[in-house]
Amino acid sequence: MSEEKENIQFELTKELVNHVEQLIKVNNDKALQKLLNGFHYADIAEILDELNLGEAMYVIKLLDSETTADILMELDEDNREKVLKNLSAKEIAEEVEELDTDDAADIIAELPEERQEEVISQIEDEAHKSEIQELLTYDEATAGSLMAKELVKVYETWTVAGCMRRIRGQAKEVTRVHSIYVVNKEEKLIGRLSLKDLIVAKSDQKISDIVKVNVDYVNVQDDVEDVAKVMAKYDLEAIPVVDDNQTLLGRITIDDIVDVLKEEAEKDYQLAAGITQDVEADDSILQLTKARLPWLFLGLIGGVGAFLIMEGFHDTFSKYAVLFFFTPLIAAMAGNVGVQSSAIIVQGLANDEVKGSVNSRLIKEMLLAALNGVLLAVFLFLFVWAIKGEINTAFAISVSLVAVIIVAGLVGTFVPLFLDKRGIDPAIATGPFITTSNDIFGILIYFWIAKMILGI
Amino acid sequence: MSEEKENIQFELTKELVNHVEQLIKVNNDKALQKLLNGFHYADIAEILDELNLGEAMYVIKLLDSETTADILMELDEDNREKVLKNLSAKEIAEEVEELDTDDAADIIAELPEERQEEVISQIEDEAHKSEIQELLTYDEATAGSLMAKELVKVYETWTVAGCMRRIRGQAKEVTRVHSIYVVNKEEKLIGRLSLKDLIVAKSDQKISDIVKVNVDYVNVQDDVEDVAKVMAKYDLEAIPVVDDNQTLLGRITIDDIVDVLKEEAEKDYQLAAGITQDVEADDSILQLTKARLPWLFLGLIGGVGAFLIMEGFHDTFSKYAVLFFFTPLIAAMAGNVGVQSSAIIVQGLANDEVKGSVNSRLIKEMLLAALNGVLLAVFLFLFVWAIKGEINTAFAISVSLVAVIIVAGLVGTFVPLFLDKRGIDPAIATGPFITTSNDIFGILIYFWIAKMILGI
Repeated sequence: MSEEKENIQFELTKELVNHVEQLIKVNNDKALQKLLNGFHYADIAEILDELNLGEAMYVIKLLDSETTADILMELDEDNREKVLKNLSAKEIAEEVEELDTDDAADIIAELPEERQEEVISQIEDEAHKSEIQELLTYDEATAGSLMAKELVKVYETWTVAGCMRRIRGQAKEVTRVHSIYVVNKEEKLIGRLSLKDLIVAKSDQKISDIVKVNVDYVNVQDDVEDVAKVMAKYDLEAIPVVDDNQTLLGRITIDDIVDVLKEEAEKDYQLAAGITQDVEADDSILQLTKARLPWLFLGLIGGVGAFLIMEGFHDTFSKYAVLFFFTPLIAAMAGNVGVQSSAIIVQGLANDEVKGSVNSRLIKEMLLAALNGVLLAVFLFLFVWAIKGEINTAFAISVSLVAVIIVAGLVGTFVPLFLDKRGIDPAIATGPFITTSNDIFGILIYFWIAKMILGI
Repeated sequence: MSEEKENIQFELTKELVNHVEQLIKVNNDKALQKLLNGFHYADIAEILDELNLGEAMYVIKLLDSETTADILMELDEDNREKVLKNLSAKEIAEEVEELDTDDAADIIAELPEERQEEVISQIEDEAHKSEIQELLTYDEATAGSLMAKELVKVYETWTVAGCMRRIRGQAKEVTRVHSIYVVNKEEKLIGRLSLKDLIVAKSDQKISDIVKVNVDYVNVQDDVEDVAKVMAKYDLEAIPVVDDNQTLLGRITIDDIVDVLKEEAEKDYQLAAGITQDVEADDSILQLTKARLPWLFLGLIGGVGAFLIMEGFHDTFSKYAVLFFFTPLIAAMAGNVGVQSSAIIVQGLANDEVKGSVNSRLIKEMLLAALNGVLLAVFLFLFVWAIKGEINTAFAISVSLVAVIIVAGLVGTFVPLFLDKRGIDPAIATGPFITTSNDIFGILIYFWIAKMILGI
């Protein structure tokens, strides 16, 4: 039993990689083929990601193009780029012929522009070629970029029996038949059918009698994120794509949406952590620096700002050095509250859950921040009073803390709402951006209020 | 055309909600039914989320239980709880009868324990009842909690024609037929078939001749996150669930996995922002405080720690006040670097991309942090030198910054790796946790190194 379980939950071990490397070294093609053909292509891609380029190319040249095409799609993006560089236009075209149109277009789109033409001209199947060319015209952020041309289409005038006959032909080139799309003679989408409906129906019934006309669809120009929302909300596994004239152009399947959702989530998470660009733990130090340094520099500028503010209060506070010892606390609290409130707004915006006016949002955050602030300030007051014995100082620091927390909460709430209204991705307003601006604001407010209360 | 598009991309408007409220007020049931039956149940749920409880109950009592059962599943969790409280055990049982077993079990699991028994005893369909009872026994984090009992199952000894006949019966109660699962006479899973395979096969062929034995499956005790990974990796739309004896128990569909992925992503995002518990922008101030205050309190404790450290270096203050003015900068940089490096590790761990030893990871992060640190320190050195004219001070602050950034990067890398090895979710080590500990570490290192360099 446990052996069978291992089979499913593929685990990439050092031993396996070593074994593959050894077989490549001694050119034992037969054993290598036998070993690798026992794995799913996604697993072979994981193995290849661990090999050096020469070894990976060896495996790719060894296996049949039906398998290698699927492997290519699953490789780490950086590795795929290297492999593609080492294949001729003719070889890439052969891989592309094995892929569904959506994957084929994705591979070609990753190539440098001059190579794209070359590869396309080498594709032998003319229908496949023109479908790929169509897909390449759609913008990356639109439904068109996710859709595949492969689908099962029937005309409303057909009978169930005629339909079954023709579907047998069409279905062969469609990996999974989610739905059968019904069009009229102008190729306009009018409804859908499931294979189940066809099987349950009588063979002499007309398609127009059993078609479900209440079909969800998206426009080819719709935003990818909106498509993902619609499919997730209505639990759809595939959705047809139409143009402005309702002409059926293609379909998008849920596996592509799963990838979109994962990428979106990772991008937002990285932005919140101050990482621009899509990087992974295994990327080079230079790539990681490019993604991290800009935000760190922003933090540095913020720190310099804080320095200038504190220097401005220098003379006034020769008497109250203790105030300076609490600046890291004030800055940390301002940063934390800002990130919390902006994260909730950013997530709410992404889920279409932020309703009501901006003002009511700000009032709510103010009350929330005030409640949190007062609870924390009471603790801080008692601490400072106990340790320093100066009730005035303790009072000044605590009151400032409440004010700083309220302002930080308002900034964290307002900025993403403002960016969203302006059509800018509010996710950039989380993390270092909010932390840095709240650090500066916070310290300024803190010294200003403390100065007022202490009368210095 | 634009009218048709609106139909698909449902938009919840104030006018629509007002219109529904008006119809409820005047008890115009006919118009209300006509209006609501034009919407998808997920859209009706969005409308109901905007109504008060009395109005929502009115709509639920009005519509047929087939629709309301689906609506219930889509309601906001807090609202669902309220609605369920207002339904009798008998009424809930009626809703539950309309749902697939997985959804039915989810609804019942949300009820207080004493009500669960009551509702179950009111379910009339005995088969449905015992299937739901079975599902309720599985732990929330396992495959069993996601699976549904509804599936299409055939025996290997059947013929294609016999199979089609019986599938017509089974398929009626299965919303979507992804795969037909093939079992032997001991009910053990031996393979699968697609409807397409059946349609393409000859009617007198044996199932055992056309079955695909290379079927992916998961164990009923497998972790939900592992199931999600397997389904996403292999692009599966459904996966069969078996017990330790390979007996077929149920199946999990991709729409449930989409929900799991979304929830996971939101949880990690909130943890990184210092928000425990699953809260939404529209939750009450008390709920939001409960989720936010613990992390803020942690930040406060960190700030108090920073205060104590700075007080320890108090004597230095008289001569080198400028050092204190840079503590917010040092703390901010330590926090930012820590969050960046921990976020990359946490994400890498989630995607199984973190390979190699902990040591090589730490060495890489050290080089990366050193590179970033030196670039930032050069800038800071020139700034302090220019503005203060003290080359020694500028040198001390810059060198400390490099050291602080390196240590922050190492802490951010090590802590999530350590937690992961210990079987603790590394995501808790992002955000405030790393920020706070790096604040304290950073300030301590900063003063210590500066003191050494300046010889005070």
